Amino acid sequence: MSLDAVFNAKSIAVVGGSEKPGTLGRALMENLLFGGYKGRVYAVNIRGDTVFGHPVFRRVTDIPDEVELAVIVVPARVVPNVLRDCAAKGVKAAIIISAGFSETGEEGRRLEQEVVSIARKAGIRIIGPNCLGVYNAHNRLDTIFNPSDRQGKPKPGSIAFISQSGALGAAILDWFSLVGLGMSKFVSYGNAADVDEADLVEYLAEDPQTRVICMYIEGVRNGPRFVEAARRAARKKPIIALKAGRTPRGAAAVTSHTGSLAGEDRIYDAAFQRSGIIRARTLEDLFAKAKALSLQPPAPGDRIAIVTNGGGAGVIATDAVEALGLKMADLSPETQRILQQKLPPHASWRNPVDVIGDAPVERYDAAIRAVMQDPQVDAVLVIFLFQSPALDAPRAVEMLDAMNREFTKPLIACTPGGEHAAKHARLMEERGIPVYSTPEEAVLAIEGLVRYGIILRKLASSQ
Amino acid sequence: MSLDAVFNAKSIAVVGGSEKPGTLGRALMENLLFGGYKGRVYAVNIRGDTVFGHPVFRRVTDIPDEVELAVIVVPARVVPNVLRDCAAKGVKAAIIISAGFSETGEEGRRLEQEVVSIARKAGIRIIGPNCLGVYNAHNRLDTIFNPSDRQGKPKPGSIAFISQSGALGAAILDWFSLVGLGMSKFVSYGNAADVDEADLVEYLAEDPQTRVICMYIEGVRNGPRFVEAARRAARKKPIIALKAGRTPRGAAAVTSHTGSLAGEDRIYDAAFQRSGIIRARTLEDLFAKAKALSLQPPAPGDRIAIVTNGGGAGVIATDAVEALGLKMADLSPETQRILQQKLPPHASWRNPVDVIGDAPVERYDAAIRAVMQDPQVDAVLVIFLFQSPALDAPRAVEMLDAMNREFTKPLIACTPGGEHAAKHARLMEERGIPVYSTPEEAVLAIEGLVRYGIILRKLASSQ
Repeated sequence: MSLDAVFNAKSIAVVGGSEKPGTLGRALMENLLFGGYKGRVYAVNIRGDTVFGHPVFRRVTDIPDEVELAVIVVPARVVPNVLRDCAAKGVKAAIIISAGFSETGEEGRRLEQEVVSIARKAGIRIIGPNCLGVYNAHNRLDTIFNPSDRQGKPKPGSIAFISQSGALGAAILDWFSLVGLGMSKFVSYGNAADVDEADLVEYLAEDPQTRVICMYIEGVRNGPRFVEAARRAARKKPIIALKAGRTPRGAAAVTSHTGSLAGEDRIYDAAFQRSGIIRARTLEDLFAKAKALSLQPPAPGDRIAIVTNGGGAGVIATDAVEALGLKMADLSPETQRILQQKLPPHASWRNPVDVIGDAPVERYDAAIRAVMQDPQVDAVLVIFLFQSPALDAPRAVEMLDAMNREFTKPLIACTPGGEHAAKHARLMEERGIPVYSTPEEAVLAIEGLVRYGIILRKLASSQ
Repeated sequence: MSLDAVFNAKSIAVVGGSEKPGTLGRALMENLLFGGYKGRVYAVNIRGDTVFGHPVFRRVTDIPDEVELAVIVVPARVVPNVLRDCAAKGVKAAIIISAGFSETGEEGRRLEQEVVSIARKAGIRIIGPNCLGVYNAHNRLDTIFNPSDRQGKPKPGSIAFISQSGALGAAILDWFSLVGLGMSKFVSYGNAADVDEADLVEYLAEDPQTRVICMYIEGVRNGPRFVEAARRAARKKPIIALKAGRTPRGAAAVTSHTGSLAGEDRIYDAAFQRSGIIRARTLEDLFAKAKALSLQPPAPGDRIAIVTNGGGAGVIATDAVEALGLKMADLSPETQRILQQKLPPHASWRNPVDVIGDAPVERYDAAIRAVMQDPQVDAVLVIFLFQSPALDAPRAVEMLDAMNREFTKPLIACTPGGEHAAKHARLMEERGIPVYSTPEEAVLAIEGLVRYGIILRKLASSQ
């Protein structure tokens, strides 16, 4: 796989690598030397000397060992020569972080074409130019050069993120690290002179560490190729995309940002539909669905059951289910009979199932078990208002964990509230149950599981 | 004002007050004796004895001093007699936390009517029954009885919250405390046997500590009276309501929860429109708008300017502005001229104004100042991607603080990211600038400022 050198290189040359404080070259050397990356790292710099005690090579061709990946941060005009050296050295891929290419006008465009033509001849794949590059949380291959006191990096996990915007991508990495969401691979691909969205989707579809592919895109370079790549990938794992520039002024802003053509939004809608891409409405929606799909299976249908100890939260969730076009499950007579038997008189054994405010864990257990076993239920949302004196949160975590192991049906939780609730939400997530802080967000997440189920059935039926 | 005894009583009798572990009576005594409340607190309990060293009175009438407020947690059937004692004692208001009234059926309904009739004759106002009661963050009059290790209570602030759902209300208090949002008064009013939504809105409209009134409601008891009360209140301060039960299944869930008639949703829409109530779509929307309206003035119009150091976040915000029916401001030629002069060549001086990734604080300062002074701009959203090595966050806080003092135009910030971003967001909020973690949420907030501006102009022109 030709992109493997980008994410899994065993040896890296940092062209422009330096010890000089405040430079990108230094930030990159620090990331790669001290960030946990286990491969070999070489600094290349016309001034020579050493970087953190390591010898500096004047040219890539001076490096005595094999080099798989070059990370390039020298000025744009020097890049073609650097790439010629990379070609001579047999480098497999280059991440060109430097700006000053097609995003700056005609001259930059010519320079970019020259770079691509050198790379293509030598079989070098290029990420960028004008990008943040790559973060592989599993092997710490990391070219995201923001200062570590300003930029958090997520723990290893199974969500991949492809971002056309570098700055937004950095903020997303930072946010993942704050909320403890795990990432597999991140890539900011800038001008996409060579490697584009389609290549990345294709690569991540085969990546064993990635369960969900997320994308922030402003415009796709090669529509038909992207649709084909996404369609193949979507059979293997869910793809969720936030496509910005959907409104007229948004589209104009896209043009002045990445120079992409945002295109008719309906065309993207149709293309996503055809590709089996789940389109996120907002960043929050994207994150909610990504977390759910990274932890839970797709839903076999759209009939949702809700179990709650607070009627109000149940009503809000019910409204959200219907507003998104999902269905509130009609519980089977057998389920209703069980619930009537096990719940107190003022509880509600209709869906949403209200186990009411004085519910202990046992009552939740009985209610969740009943809806899990109901063939008329496709996915279950459990709302815990952990403020209740009756509800023992650590035991609720254990109960839900056991439920999640026993049943294959998608299970999602919602724990509105403060510190105590958030702490037990985290424990549930460590056990594979996605948790949300509002009912509406939880339902956005469930919608992701339902939508991916529909996509899989559709792709399977169309061979 | 007859509800003053509910929120500002100088002396309280806790009927059912006790030292017995695990009881509501004990939790209430702990809240009122040790939570910072400065008034006098008396425990009333047929068993007599003492509570935390304080003498217990067998009847309210045995208390030697004046009693303004009775908080009642004894079984429902005893409540009429307790209220007769309250009447004899000259108590002004009662919070009846006990359940077992109209929510349980015909017998409970009769009991509730009896209680109301005793109270009306004696001029006692009643909150409840079947409720959590009241939390006044300013004087710590607090009947929210959940254990303090499970239930956070917000700091004093200017947002009032009226909740028809007790459990959801508790979760909201807990969430406010987690995110550091200040509250003035909270009330869970349960069955609303006497005091209802209209009374509470009327009271809070006159409350000097409340700048914004938030509501969670499932059904309004007296529509015309509520519309009139809200319409009068909305001239003084914004009212934001989340009305649940808007879908058919949601409406059915409302009936089995609070027994309210959720009613035709279009009728609520029309009533809210007429009342000048801002209708929130989701809990997140409610919180976003409440925070903005508690800190910033209403917007004089709907033309929004965006300043950002990340193009992608700017595009997302632009899409959100247009999707909500707000307008992206067309910057005046003068503003564009200033921006062209002060920003580097690859920045965008069209709206969204992209100061680009290497922007220091000074560049933000110039751009924000330019759009603040532009008569074609009604509100300003500033997005900071604090991951950038070029952007000094503490100085950005100072700059924005100065901007907020210098100009009266509404100002909102958005700081997507992790810990570093969240820390400086908190500092901005302490200085009166509402901050959000996604562009979409920030635009929901700005929409609140725009909507309230429209409401004020409409109410002013209609007499």
